[in-house]
Amino acid sequence: MHSLPHIVIQSPDPTLLPALRHKIDRKTKPLGALGVLEALALQIGLIQQSLTPSLRRPSLTIFAADHGLARAGVSLYPPEVTPQMVYNFLAGGAATNIFARQHGFALQVVDAGVNADFPSDLPLRHEKLGFGTANALEAPAMSRTQAIQGLETGRRIAHEEVEKGSNVLAFGEMGIGNTSSATLLSHFLADLPIAACTGRGTGLDDAGLARKIATLEAVAARVGPGPHEVIDILAEVGGFEVVMMTGAMLGAAEKGALIVIDGFIASAALLAAMRIAPAVRDYAVFGHRSHEGGHPLLLNHLLATPLLQLDLRLGEGSGAVLAWPLLQAACGFLNEMASFEEAGVSGEAAQ
Amino acid sequence: MHSLPHIVIQSPDPTLLPALRHKIDRKTKPLGALGVLEALALQIGLIQQSLTPSLRRPSLTIFAADHGLARAGVSLYPPEVTPQMVYNFLAGGAATNIFARQHGFALQVVDAGVNADFPSDLPLRHEKLGFGTANALEAPAMSRTQAIQGLETGRRIAHEEVEKGSNVLAFGEMGIGNTSSATLLSHFLADLPIAACTGRGTGLDDAGLARKIATLEAVAARVGPGPHEVIDILAEVGGFEVVMMTGAMLGAAEKGALIVIDGFIASAALLAAMRIAPAVRDYAVFGHRSHEGGHPLLLNHLLATPLLQLDLRLGEGSGAVLAWPLLQAACGFLNEMASFEEAGVSGEAAQ
Repeated sequence: MHSLPHIVIQSPDPTLLPALRHKIDRKTKPLGALGVLEALALQIGLIQQSLTPSLRRPSLTIFAADHGLARAGVSLYPPEVTPQMVYNFLAGGAATNIFARQHGFALQVVDAGVNADFPSDLPLRHEKLGFGTANALEAPAMSRTQAIQGLETGRRIAHEEVEKGSNVLAFGEMGIGNTSSATLLSHFLADLPIAACTGRGTGLDDAGLARKIATLEAVAARVGPGPHEVIDILAEVGGFEVVMMTGAMLGAAEKGALIVIDGFIASAALLAAMRIAPAVRDYAVFGHRSHEGGHPLLLNHLLATPLLQLDLRLGEGSGAVLAWPLLQAACGFLNEMASFEEAGVSGEAAQ
Repeated sequence: MHSLPHIVIQSPDPTLLPALRHKIDRKTKPLGALGVLEALALQIGLIQQSLTPSLRRPSLTIFAADHGLARAGVSLYPPEVTPQMVYNFLAGGAATNIFARQHGFALQVVDAGVNADFPSDLPLRHEKLGFGTANALEAPAMSRTQAIQGLETGRRIAHEEVEKGSNVLAFGEMGIGNTSSATLLSHFLADLPIAACTGRGTGLDDAGLARKIATLEAVAARVGPGPHEVIDILAEVGGFEVVMMTGAMLGAAEKGALIVIDGFIASAALLAAMRIAPAVRDYAVFGHRSHEGGHPLLLNHLLATPLLQLDLRLGEGSGAVLAWPLLQAACGFLNEMASFEEAGVSGEAAQ
């Protein structure tokens, strides 16, 4: 239980690539004219090892947790907002609820470590790793044991979603202060500079931003330089929801499901997952590019081009859920569109 | 019949703006955190003059026509592809059919002037202005009378869609050679340089691109400089589908419907429509930014930020239809999302 689980993720077999490319190129359109949707159709076809892929039971899991660092003033919002937003998700009133309903996502909310007692009969998945992380300025956000437990829980949650019939899994998060964790993970795992990665979160002013940068640099100084195992870095900088999301991404890829990445925090969780099993990257589709702090830098590091650029800075999985119709469009054209031969259209120019 | 119709379009009354802004800002999210969707919700609310706007019966009309200029080698594809693609649309096999079905659009195809005889019993709207335009290198693409008739027909088509219950109208086009018309319209109506606006269309190589630029500059030289009425410019450079789409945009805005703009050619049609009634711009949402030729330049000229950037270069209305879920998401959060007060979430930081 106290050692990292053995997780094996295989990259999709690329043998099918030429047949997928040929199928796309014979569709009644100029070569490459569907742009990003063509790359998406290729990726989904490879993941599913099928020339006729299909997307089933899209699933959104929102992990919520609190951060000890939030007491150091890294966010405009008080930590009470985390449990308040959990109730809002359960009542169906948050933005991500609206988008999930619009697109038919199965939605579940996981208490990964909110600093509040929730009644046991709430329609909430109770997986609390603690009542918020410790303040990373003073000590590791969590123990190594908690971090491993979080990975295992996330992994099990993803496996269960696949068992329920999902082959597209999106993950969201709620946790006042969690852009700080994402910034520190980007720093330790991708060598990105803290100041450049630190954003205004939900609306800090210049003085607040400077204070947040100083705080995060103090955390990095406490953790110190030198080699770290990824599980130790996750334990040092948290948070509970990030660790669980990292495990869930690994669990989804183990089962061959498509993972839809939301914003900065989800991208940082993927970065951590890639340290454990690099091939998890092959299963990831990036839903949205935010301007938040390090997200553009981290996306560059990951060589990722998100499907949407809508200036969202919300989290909750919103940017992943909003990208769903484009995944459907990619499968739709691959499966349903006529070829030049079927339609009797002159396609010589496209050869 | 031979004079421009008198078209009056009013900008939406802005009185409702502060109430819409307040409603958006009290939602359970950080201020501005829904980015582009917030601007979209404001625009839709203003157009419908409602704090609870709703989108009804999305409609896609595809205008197809041929271009005399296509015989001058401005496209890789032979003109026969235009009627072949009309049959493909009617059979439901083109990309835009797939996307329109996915999103529940009512789709109609209009023969605005294809150089082919279609059987009268085809489920095609027969509004042929001619069997393809004249070669604009040698003569005006069409007469002033044809241009006015095309505007009136497009306008009537839009009015009928609104009468059928639509308040969101998207317009697509099919016409081998029609990026040439869009480039020339951008040149004459927005003063954009021809060389910078000329794109590879459906895949020209360097020599083909140079030939296309020389051809379009020769057309511009034949038309000559100096003041022109917009209707004369439309007649000079065509095409039939562009003129009809221009009229349809005007007709949609007259009835207070939202117009969803696709790519370069649709943007050029909007540019022409704005010369007839500038307030048509207030009803337009831009679905997609393509890299095709002058589209980025023209979008800058129009101060437009499209919702999607997917490297599509297809036309057919595809980029407009694919943007539909974002329009729904904008209305969805405005109508359904909880406010801080309703959800009991601490929202002071957002004030």
